[in-house]
Amino acid sequence: MTFPKNAWYVACTPSEIDEKPLGRTVCNEKMVFYRGDENKVAALEDFCPHRAAPLSLGRVCDGKLVCGYHGLAMGCDGKTVSMPGQRVGGFPAIRAFPVVERYGFVWVWPGEAALADAALIPHMEWYANPEWAYGGGLYHIACDYRLMIDNLMDLTHETYVHANSIGQKEIDETPCKTTAEGDLVVTSRFMEGVEPPPFWKLALKGNHLPDDVMVDRWQICRFTPPSNVMIEVGVAPVGSGGYEAPNDKKVYSVVVDFITPETETSIHYFWGMARKFNPNDKALTATVREGQGKIFSEDLEMLEKQQRNISANPDRKLLMLNIDAGGLRSRKVIERLIAQEQPAA
Amino acid sequence: MTFPKNAWYVACTPSEIDEKPLGRTVCNEKMVFYRGDENKVAALEDFCPHRAAPLSLGRVCDGKLVCGYHGLAMGCDGKTVSMPGQRVGGFPAIRAFPVVERYGFVWVWPGEAALADAALIPHMEWYANPEWAYGGGLYHIACDYRLMIDNLMDLTHETYVHANSIGQKEIDETPCKTTAEGDLVVTSRFMEGVEPPPFWKLALKGNHLPDDVMVDRWQICRFTPPSNVMIEVGVAPVGSGGYEAPNDKKVYSVVVDFITPETETSIHYFWGMARKFNPNDKALTATVREGQGKIFSEDLEMLEKQQRNISANPDRKLLMLNIDAGGLRSRKVIERLIAQEQPAA
Amino acid sequence: MTFPKNAWYVACTPSEIDEKPLGRTVCNEKMVFYRGDENKVAALEDFCPHRAAPLSLGRVCDGKLVCGYHGLAMGCDGKTVSMPGQRVGGFPAIRAFPVVERYGFVWVWPGEAALADAALIPHMEWYANPEWAYGGGLYHIACDYRLMIDNLMDLTHETYVHANSIGQKEIDETPCKTTAEGDLVVTSRFMEGVEPPPFWKLALKGNHLPDDVMVDRWQICRFTPPSNVMIEVGVAPVGSGGYEAPNDKKVYSVVVDFITPETETSIHYFWGMARKFNPNDKALTATVREGQGKIFSEDLEMLEKQQRNISANPDRKLLMLNIDAGGLRSRKVIERLIAQEQPAA
Repeated sequence: MTFPKNAWYVACTPSEIDEKPLGRTVCNEKMVFYRGDENKVAALEDFCPHRAAPLSLGRVCDGKLVCGYHGLAMGCDGKTVSMPGQRVGGFPAIRAFPVVERYGFVWVWPGEAALADAALIPHMEWYANPEWAYGGGLYHIACDYRLMIDNLMDLTHETYVHANSIGQKEIDETPCKTTAEGDLVVTSRFMEGVEPPPFWKLALKGNHLPDDVMVDRWQICRFTPPSNVMIEVGVAPVGSGGYEAPNDKKVYSVVVDFITPETETSIHYFWGMARKFNPNDKALTATVREGQGKIFSEDLEMLEKQQRNISANPDRKLLMLNIDAGGLRSRKVIERLIAQEQPAA
Repeated sequence: MTFPKNAWYVACTPSEIDEKPLGRTVCNEKMVFYRGDENKVAALEDFCPHRAAPLSLGRVCDGKLVCGYHGLAMGCDGKTVSMPGQRVGGFPAIRAFPVVERYGFVWVWPGEAALADAALIPHMEWYANPEWAYGGGLYHIACDYRLMIDNLMDLTHETYVHANSIGQKEIDETPCKTTAEGDLVVTSRFMEGVEPPPFWKLALKGNHLPDDVMVDRWQICRFTPPSNVMIEVGVAPVGSGGYEAPNDKKVYSVVVDFITPETETSIHYFWGMARKFNPNDKALTATVREGQGKIFSEDLEMLEKQQRNISANPDRKLLMLNIDAGGLRSRKVIERLIAQEQPAA
Repeated sequence: MTFPKNAWYVACTPSEIDEKPLGRTVCNEKMVFYRGDENKVAALEDFCPHRAAPLSLGRVCDGKLVCGYHGLAMGCDGKTVSMPGQRVGGFPAIRAFPVVERYGFVWVWPGEAALADAALIPHMEWYANPEWAYGGGLYHIACDYRLMIDNLMDLTHETYVHANSIGQKEIDETPCKTTAEGDLVVTSRFMEGVEPPPFWKLALKGNHLPDDVMVDRWQICRFTPPSNVMIEVGVAPVGSGGYEAPNDKKVYSVVVDFITPETETSIHYFWGMARKFNPNDKALTATVREGQGKIFSEDLEMLEKQQRNISANPDRKLLMLNIDAGGLRSRKVIERLIAQEQPAA
């Protein structure tokens, strides 16, 4: 196992289950997500105990998930509630997974249910906060989720993969600093007096700031387990105070990344951007989302081919440079959590 | 092996081999079907003994199947007849399969040829019978053939999978009765005074009967090995005599299902409907065929995903309810036939 | 291993690497081809030593291949030259493959580099020779490369696979003669007084010769290892001297085939035709290339399905007829070369 299972993972967005149940595999577990009793989210094994039909092909009636094959009605606890013409007392229960709807996402705990504590879900200060605007999307990528953590904890790749949008030479030239404290790993880079690349020019304009000036730029990547990476990013015209500048003198955002393992070598990648400037401009939200979606799609081919190279050469040692420190420290946190899940000898 | 090999299976329809040879795998055997000597159907291994080319890429000349690669001419008995510039006496024979064209289908016996008796092919009373009309089609489905037998021997699924065409609540509410005698398994259900669902309204109109009345409805599923399921279905306006009503007072059909295993987890599914009302109305035949094709296509996703759930959980026990009795008894017949094929210890 | 690795294989055409690096697998080795120092062709493992990214997603700067992920700059010898912010002295080298651009192709040596001698690349007399014109293309085919050698060393298949273009009954009826000397295997067939099939009528017209006359036709197939097949082909109106006729009285070409194994069961097939008549007619070159491309595409389905039959029946013996002598002798040469590559016991 390369991922901890006793952890909250983003499973889907609420809109994905508004119309009908959703079948999705999380950490190798085939699950069905839906709205059950009182419209609350529920997550079960996607396996009808009657004849193994996927419950995700069924529909919800009166809070029960009714199998689309022969009508078995399943409760949110995994116990069969009823089936036409049958007494269901002896039916085996299927697995129910702890699940919580919070901050605009559905979170699932694929491991030991008794340990699931909703208080462990990371707080998102921008959610339902009028000072912020949020937009995002979902990509499916055929790679180990840790390759995406590496990607996000080492932004020197922007210079090469995203050369025409957010990349610039100064990222390479400015050393980054990585620290770790407990489960939190932080890699930060501050660039002073650089030209804003195209995406940031667009953002400056979006906050009614000049885009033809030199700026200070910052990137503060924060990993928390199991696989969440929040990146404070932004630019401020030189002389405005940089990262500390007031909101109307800078463009300040948080790149939001929830990387949910589907299998050992594939992920559901929930990406987004929380923006703390001009939050009521919905057209800007759409423009930023479209721009980010295009930029983040540039990583897909690289990550999938990198995965194929690694799978074909499983024992080959890779380099561990200082720019890789963020990813490496994050992996150490993950390894510790996985080890904790193993039964004592 | 999950299927008997000493049995007649439907391999194709005659029209599939009218133009050129057809390559098709039946019970894990790669075969080529074509019209050979005197236009009679023939079935051989799809493997040229010269250089392993598939004979199905060849063409028929003077009753011989000529390999499309280097011109080896093969007889219907699997013995090479000639090859340009070669003496063929020492060429190894390939396997020829017993094959019969009957009742509008080509039947093949993938097992021991000496045991193949054409008298074992089930009689189809509607074939070339002016009282009947027939239409049907072919689907390829990635599932164990026994899942399709289960499907057809338990029609409660109509309420869920085919809710908008032939399903209705009363199917669930009316108990079915299953009996077995020798190789024949019968599951029947009789519903009295129910509203005809849309497909049956269409059929009633097709026999010039009122479609806004309550009807008696019947379903009598008959499994015979290796994997044939014939289902007497129909409705008659209440008071007409139900199943026993005269032909002009009811709509009476037989759903015809030949389920031919391609591999352990895929099938060629020949579905059709033999109709014993208004047989000369060709437009009606086309309408019924189109309606059935659409209805039967609704099972595909369910069966393929059910198969994937089973393949991923091979040891997980499923439920055996009374509605499953038809499928279970049919599997017992199949198991007995497979056991009979094993060499004595 | 079914192919020798100490040999020159065609990897690509120069135009494939004009714009950007090309990732391609040759003999199971994932390689990247590009133009490096002084615009010379280079071939490396397609694997960045930093984090396993494929170098083929990078770009060339100042003769170095710069990884498209984090900017590592790689030299043509497989040693890292530089990386932003890093000292690269301790970086492990990746494999560089001997590579030569010659005769309009890029040749690679996937085996032991010390043995690579460019003098072993076969001479192509038509290259940059005003008496000749050349056109060709590339197909990817899912078959063992030896099946394509068989195909080209036994042209009786033209009668069946290419019946409407270059096939004719007389190919079957005229015995071929196979000789071998050292590494060279030759199979030849001379047909006298036959009607030219459609492709050759087109060629006759292309050389301003009558196409409504009987012709002498020749096919001289020459295999040289590892997997090159050159076929002298042509026709001359009866009485002109046949194969020996002067250039303006015949149409004379060499079919050029470089068969590069990608894996044990797939190939990059570089096909072409060198024409020694009317060489300055560029429209004719395009017409011939289009015709050949269409004809050679007719082999694909046959070869891929033949491969599947062989893979499914690995131990089944095939026939070895006299028409197969060319392929069989070629395989013996290959086997000898593979045996020579094995370390002594």
